[in-house]
Amino acid sequence: MEDILNLRYALDTFYFLMSGALVMWMAAGFAMLEAGLVRAKNTAEILTKNVSLFAIACIMYMLCGYSIMYPDGGNGIIPALDFSFMLGGDNDPAAVLKQDPSKWYDGDYYSGMSDFFFQVVFVATAMSIVSGAVAERMKLWSFLGFAVVMTGFIYPMQGYWKWGGGFLDGLGFNDFAGSGVVHLCGAAAALAGVLLLGARKGKYGPNGEVRAIPGANMPLATLGTFILWLGWFGFNGGSELILSNVGEANAVAAVFVNTNAAAAGGVIAAMITARAVFGKADLTMTLNGALAGLVAITAEPLAPSPLLATIVGMVGGLLVVFSIITLDKLKIDDPVGAISVHGVVGMWGLLAVAITNPEATFGAQIIGLVTIFGWTFGASLLVWYIIKVSVGIRVSEQEEYEGVDIGECGLEAYPEFVGSRGSAM
Amino acid sequence: MEDILNLRYALDTFYFLMSGALVMWMAAGFAMLEAGLVRAKNTAEILTKNVSLFAIACIMYMLCGYSIMYPDGGNGIIPALDFSFMLGGDNDPAAVLKQDPSKWYDGDYYSGMSDFFFQVVFVATAMSIVSGAVAERMKLWSFLGFAVVMTGFIYPMQGYWKWGGGFLDGLGFNDFAGSGVVHLCGAAAALAGVLLLGARKGKYGPNGEVRAIPGANMPLATLGTFILWLGWFGFNGGSELILSNVGEANAVAAVFVNTNAAAAGGVIAAMITARAVFGKADLTMTLNGALAGLVAITAEPLAPSPLLATIVGMVGGLLVVFSIITLDKLKIDDPVGAISVHGVVGMWGLLAVAITNPEATFGAQIIGLVTIFGWTFGASLLVWYIIKVSVGIRVSEQEEYEGVDIGECGLEAYPEFVGSRGSAM
Amino acid sequence: MEDILNLRYALDTFYFLMSGALVMWMAAGFAMLEAGLVRAKNTAEILTKNVSLFAIACIMYMLCGYSIMYPDGGNGIIPALDFSFMLGGDNDPAAVLKQDPSKWYDGDYYSGMSDFFFQVVFVATAMSIVSGAVAERMKLWSFLGFAVVMTGFIYPMQGYWKWGGGFLDGLGFNDFAGSGVVHLCGAAAALAGVLLLGARKGKYGPNGEVRAIPGANMPLATLGTFILWLGWFGFNGGSELILSNVGEANAVAAVFVNTNAAAAGGVIAAMITARAVFGKADLTMTLNGALAGLVAITAEPLAPSPLLATIVGMVGGLLVVFSIITLDKLKIDDPVGAISVHGVVGMWGLLAVAITNPEATFGAQIIGLVTIFGWTFGASLLVWYIIKVSVGIRVSEQEEYEGVDIGECGLEAYPEFVGSRGSAM
Repeated sequence: MEDILNLRYALDTFYFLMSGALVMWMAAGFAMLEAGLVRAKNTAEILTKNVSLFAIACIMYMLCGYSIMYPDGGNGIIPALDFSFMLGGDNDPAAVLKQDPSKWYDGDYYSGMSDFFFQVVFVATAMSIVSGAVAERMKLWSFLGFAVVMTGFIYPMQGYWKWGGGFLDGLGFNDFAGSGVVHLCGAAAALAGVLLLGARKGKYGPNGEVRAIPGANMPLATLGTFILWLGWFGFNGGSELILSNVGEANAVAAVFVNTNAAAAGGVIAAMITARAVFGKADLTMTLNGALAGLVAITAEPLAPSPLLATIVGMVGGLLVVFSIITLDKLKIDDPVGAISVHGVVGMWGLLAVAITNPEATFGAQIIGLVTIFGWTFGASLLVWYIIKVSVGIRVSEQEEYEGVDIGECGLEAYPEFVGSRGSAM
Repeated sequence: MEDILNLRYALDTFYFLMSGALVMWMAAGFAMLEAGLVRAKNTAEILTKNVSLFAIACIMYMLCGYSIMYPDGGNGIIPALDFSFMLGGDNDPAAVLKQDPSKWYDGDYYSGMSDFFFQVVFVATAMSIVSGAVAERMKLWSFLGFAVVMTGFIYPMQGYWKWGGGFLDGLGFNDFAGSGVVHLCGAAAALAGVLLLGARKGKYGPNGEVRAIPGANMPLATLGTFILWLGWFGFNGGSELILSNVGEANAVAAVFVNTNAAAAGGVIAAMITARAVFGKADLTMTLNGALAGLVAITAEPLAPSPLLATIVGMVGGLLVVFSIITLDKLKIDDPVGAISVHGVVGMWGLLAVAITNPEATFGAQIIGLVTIFGWTFGASLLVWYIIKVSVGIRVSEQEEYEGVDIGECGLEAYPEFVGSRGSAM
Repeated sequence: MEDILNLRYALDTFYFLMSGALVMWMAAGFAMLEAGLVRAKNTAEILTKNVSLFAIACIMYMLCGYSIMYPDGGNGIIPALDFSFMLGGDNDPAAVLKQDPSKWYDGDYYSGMSDFFFQVVFVATAMSIVSGAVAERMKLWSFLGFAVVMTGFIYPMQGYWKWGGGFLDGLGFNDFAGSGVVHLCGAAAALAGVLLLGARKGKYGPNGEVRAIPGANMPLATLGTFILWLGWFGFNGGSELILSNVGEANAVAAVFVNTNAAAAGGVIAAMITARAVFGKADLTMTLNGALAGLVAITAEPLAPSPLLATIVGMVGGLLVVFSIITLDKLKIDDPVGAISVHGVVGMWGLLAVAITNPEATFGAQIIGLVTIFGWTFGASLLVWYIIKVSVGIRVSEQEEYEGVDIGECGLEAYPEFVGSRGSAM
């Protein structure tokens, strides 16, 4: 029996580590997506942001975030704190193997370190969502200051409420892999930042017209989307948390299939919608459609059939096009569409659970949605505001015109390439 | 015993899912490879094609392709249809665990959903091959229309003949991971399209001279090649279908080693051949050499020793250079060399099996080769023809001159970069 | 019991293969990193180098390197040679399953082919380090000639001394995953080459001033860094060599967490150091910081707590900035900072083991460090010298001015993009 338990533990741990590695890879996806969708003069800075926010997330989540999100107890709203993770340590093998096999999955059936690894890349994902929305005009170090608070405190608190066993979990709120906890959370923080930051200069004309500011590098944006698509198999697939028996292996496989199906549905719906609205097969909308499909299915990638998952993704792909158009009408300037993809479609994902999973209710889903959005938006607004009135959040007009690459990073992303057309923008 | 069966099932399913994720990643590889090898003005469109064809493949294969390719029965030529997959469902755990362990691998030893996931990314691979060959001049929506038929019907039919247990399988035709079923099939469909489509304007001069049209972005093409190389470990490695005992684990490992060895051989052979023919270490030929090595070994990556696998890849790398030169002499315009890499070398891969695997015969390999090529080429020609005479397959001369990005997608891939040199092309 | 052994063997083999695939992916990371950090006119050539050196490494390691590094015996300095690997073959299943389960991990508990696969991608990593340092001025074929000797002989010899059971292993020298055996080795070979090759024209002014030569494509460099970060989970994670019980699974998970933590620490330290020194958040330094953190933890990613691992990485990130500045003062021209990242920080990694792992001593670490550096530097210097005096190692001034892409590869990496700014460099 010990042999069996050893193998189960090892397999489930390995499954977690591979899933975590795939989610870590999403950091590269966000970096490429955002670098492709901004102008050349702001590319090095957004790359710098994406690398450094990932590092900050890893360090802050180690120092306090993980302890807040997965405490040993708490009253459902306030977690009981115990900052011991940074000292290392994992399950004692002898104790693990003494566990009752019939209650195995209630106990320590995989490495605690592998759990930390999987969780830490999730918080980085949430933070990556923010960087795109505030691109091309925010001060780098102010952004990083926000990242410290977001990854160390704001995200972990609402994460505790659901995944850490807090009050949202008790209310029957369903969020399998984080349409709410990760994506809506990231989008809410982004929205708060964008509202305090204002639109990029020249984005909205004096007579209310919306000016397209095309991204500089479409292959990068496409690569980023494919990376995210791949990483999502770890994101959703790993969130089943168990692999090592027939039923659970089937579940993980169903999650892979549905995640892929929803992305495919999102692509097709967004592409056709863009064709209908703009008359062309707009590539950026198609890419956002893929991501919207993925976000939409994330709250419940297990229960639906592949056909239903495709439809959930299609609705996401449809929504994202109209959401992007609507936000522009509201003069909420989001260069990469992150608030639409992760926020608006994240909400759809949460609500869709009530349709695809008989155990979920609209009531509980709405309570979860409102709580996550309200907390994250409110707390983020406060933090952004403090940063704004203390050190400032927006670069100077001159720096914005010249590009934040030179001002913030002291170098150019493409020093040999940008000619007369680029410098005129 | 149940514990063992649970673990085996879980491990084999996980192996399938990881392999499938690697193959899915090849979609990004094709996108980057093709985006790097076309001109800047046609880049956004080929990216759009690659994202949307993947989505179409996933949806069509779910709706009907998988049922056609892996039916419950049939007469060896016509599959017995039963379109039930889209409703979901997987093996019943209780029934799985009741199976006779001594006949375990004849039964349901891994998740059916994981099988679908692995298979669906293969059909997307076949379709990706087509997009490169018809690049820079085909109408986007006509291409997507073809993709619907190809992924939903043409590919699954010949897939059934071999992997679904149809007549080619009965004849002793060997194709481990699809030099024929996937690569030759994709290339045959591409060739049919190219013949009806014609060459790009300016590719062949009035006096029969061949003009080089260099790809716009070599780093992208190289990245795509590395992505494909990595993904191929899933493509070939997953095609062993079983991992969970000593003999099978050895087999999967041998497939990994041989796949890598053949790619390495392809690189060296193509590079030296290009050096001999052109006098320079041509990068695009080197990249095609890697892919040729991979295609060549795909029909039999298990039987040969690593040294023999290297040689099989080397022959592929040699062939691809001369094939690309020859197709240009025949004025068959394939901007990325897809027909040479996947078609000509795919044929070599099928024939090489008769050399490396004592159980294979040239006769059966040739029958398989001819059947796959004949069916796919013929059926594709018909479909392309119907599209051509109904909605048309080629963009206008004006649109081709300006680039299909503006015409089909309404945006540019590199709006800030292309200067006087680019716009003149 | 046989069932258990089958499963263990399969799981450990699969873990090895997945780890190896991740390390293979690092080849793409080096290619992108280096392509991003050189000028546009030298990009195609460095891509060609990276693809072909990987192929050469695979072939040479198969032909002789693996046999040298992991011989059946030897006297601790000279391995006993037995070149049989190229013929194929793996552990006999029946013999494997007859092994005493209590001594299982001393025997053949995973596929020998999977071991070869894992090892072969390591030698490619070492060789990739060299290509960056000698970029923009070395003859392609001379470089490839060196690669043959390095991957077939120089690297395997010192690898044998430590990992193959040679004298360094007997002395108690610790190098978990290769801060020394891989990274310092690669950097030492690179340094030898750079010293014989000289600096790029124009890098150092007549009055001793150092001129910045910015890399052409920052998104590529960032992508490369993320790829390397991901691949490092296989590099370090796979080096535990066993996964299939509770203690080992915990160990692998700890390695993942610590590897990630060190990279994060390196990013933050390098970014803050660069901010202090240059006044800006220099992206290339930030990227080098991530890599420095990874190199630093590679010699001992298991023993430290995550917090300590972060600090080990931070020291690496700090060191790399000052090392790059110092090498430039010494007029040692390394376009991508490879000698600093892999050499200087590799040394720090080896020494850090004596701090983080109670079983290690500074004495043994220094002996290992000196041996690896001395052997590799000396042997490489000799080989580079022979190449220099026979066929030459440096391209002509004219070719260097025009870019090695045209001269060596006969094509341009970005034929449509580089305008007046680029061609002037």
